[in-house]
Amino acid sequence: MEYLLSVDLGGTNILIALAKRKGEIVRLQQFPTGAAAGPESVWHNLLAGLEEVLCREGIPWHKLAGLGVCAAGFFDYYTRSIISSPNLPGWENISLEERLKEKLCLPVLTENDANAAAFGEFIFGAGRGKRNMVNVTLGTGIGGGIIIDGKIYRGSGGFAGEIGHIPVLPEGPLCGCGRRGCLESLSSGSAIARAGRAAIAEGEQTILKKVIQNSGGITASHVFEAARKGDAVSVKIIERANYYLGRAFATIVNILNPSLITLGGGMARAGETIFTPVRLHLKEAAIRPSGEMVEVVPAILGEEAGVRGMLALLEQHLLQN
Amino acid sequence: MEYLLSVDLGGTNILIALAKRKGEIVRLQQFPTGAAAGPESVWHNLLAGLEEVLCREGIPWHKLAGLGVCAAGFFDYYTRSIISSPNLPGWENISLEERLKEKLCLPVLTENDANAAAFGEFIFGAGRGKRNMVNVTLGTGIGGGIIIDGKIYRGSGGFAGEIGHIPVLPEGPLCGCGRRGCLESLSSGSAIARAGRAAIAEGEQTILKKVIQNSGGITASHVFEAARKGDAVSVKIIERANYYLGRAFATIVNILNPSLITLGGGMARAGETIFTPVRLHLKEAAIRPSGEMVEVVPAILGEEAGVRGMLALLEQHLLQN
Repeated sequence: MEYLLSVDLGGTNILIALAKRKGEIVRLQQFPTGAAAGPESVWHNLLAGLEEVLCREGIPWHKLAGLGVCAAGFFDYYTRSIISSPNLPGWENISLEERLKEKLCLPVLTENDANAAAFGEFIFGAGRGKRNMVNVTLGTGIGGGIIIDGKIYRGSGGFAGEIGHIPVLPEGPLCGCGRRGCLESLSSGSAIARAGRAAIAEGEQTILKKVIQNSGGITASHVFEAARKGDAVSVKIIERANYYLGRAFATIVNILNPSLITLGGGMARAGETIFTPVRLHLKEAAIRPSGEMVEVVPAILGEEAGVRGMLALLEQHLLQN
Repeated sequence: MEYLLSVDLGGTNILIALAKRKGEIVRLQQFPTGAAAGPESVWHNLLAGLEEVLCREGIPWHKLAGLGVCAAGFFDYYTRSIISSPNLPGWENISLEERLKEKLCLPVLTENDANAAAFGEFIFGAGRGKRNMVNVTLGTGIGGGIIIDGKIYRGSGGFAGEIGHIPVLPEGPLCGCGRRGCLESLSSGSAIARAGRAAIAEGEQTILKKVIQNSGGITASHVFEAARKGDAVSVKIIERANYYLGRAFATIVNILNPSLITLGGGMARAGETIFTPVRLHLKEAAIRPSGEMVEVVPAILGEEAGVRGMLALLEQHLLQN
């Protein structure tokens, strides 16, 4: 029996899956990334995590057929290296794939995390049976992965699918990327939290202050909770975020005419509070034939989308090589 | 010797090309569409045009290997019919392909005009040697065609590439499609003409009135001419159009990461007045790695892009069938 290892290297956690070939995941375990301590520390944590997962299941290294790793950040598919990553400080032009191959003497495949998640949803999740789909991850940031004709669409440099930085509002709020009015600056979890903070700071009439008491600070969840309780200020913040998300979806639909958009990530758990208005704003802003044919549905793999996508990609890679 | 016929069926003119197989165009001729008189009249004009082109060159019908027709409008690639066309009144759910096949007993291929133009630029024009590119046609309206991996990208229904209706400004000007703030409502020739008209109507200090004297009405060309003469109002109108076009290009670049965008259509003749600011606004609004690698260059086939694209598509089609 041969096994595969699959890793989602995130800014906060490293999620590791051990799976049988062409079969189910036998172990799924999470480790802290320790990103703040820099690349060498992350490298150490990653290797220690892999060791532990194998050790716990009693699987020796030689029973592994391959390792797949997806990571956040700008990933140059063609040079197989991470150019830079906002969530992994110090990761610049690092060829994780080369280094892992050398260290582990195994076939290794690396991939951008948004692409891996999209492929996961396409193969095992809400996108099964589709040919053209887009998976959007709505959390602290906003990521996207595009599947065209059953394959990850990468573009000419490997940077396609940067949904979070679609410019949606001229002179809009400052985005983490340094530009103004990107989708992420208006519709992400951090954008919603920031709008909530601003509402409190500006002395608006809101129950937000009460909702956040005893917690460290305001998060998007607090704004959603206050909105559920009828807080008009919070309702307005969420409506605005949904409006721009719907318009960005319309943009995707006008350009790509996909049959499906899957929406996942922590914030998508808010369910119809997001889905119903986003579908509405999409239909309002998209050309009719494309807007009518696209479905917007929840992604279903949750945090496992990335590792599952990597398992499928790794199987394909091993078959082809 | 076998020949091919290729047609670009536009709202104003029907452009017909007669070409040798795998060779040059031997005749290129334009006829009025007569769109206002309805589909039957257009059908008559099309057939009469084809007859005339063949007759002038002394080519009998039986020497033709196929006919390719591209047309403006929403074109359902999979049912092979024109769903609707803003420039061809009365064309609704018309299967031009079926009708032409029956009438002419020839292999017939139909295609959306923006896709045909993009394929033309890809095979014969500014996109030669690229794998992923987008061709944008900037005229009265704004059209787009996407080439991915050397093929026209159609999306799930055949409606991909609707660049003109990317929503770029919330609550922006009314677009011909009925929505507000589409790219076409801000950066097209008709948008620029409308802004010029509005400037005159609102009594702004502009030489536009002098520039248009003796002509029927204001067009985008008048605004460009006035801007060249230093008219501040016209300069501002064009700057605004370029700003939104650059941001729409950044959107395309963030989503698709193409190596090339070709820009054609009547307005693109304004040259660096458009290209320089559009490249700047693109780089400002796009994510860095994708924004740095994309080139924005003039399309070079002009009005022949559509018929040339159809010739290449027809050759492919005949080889495969």
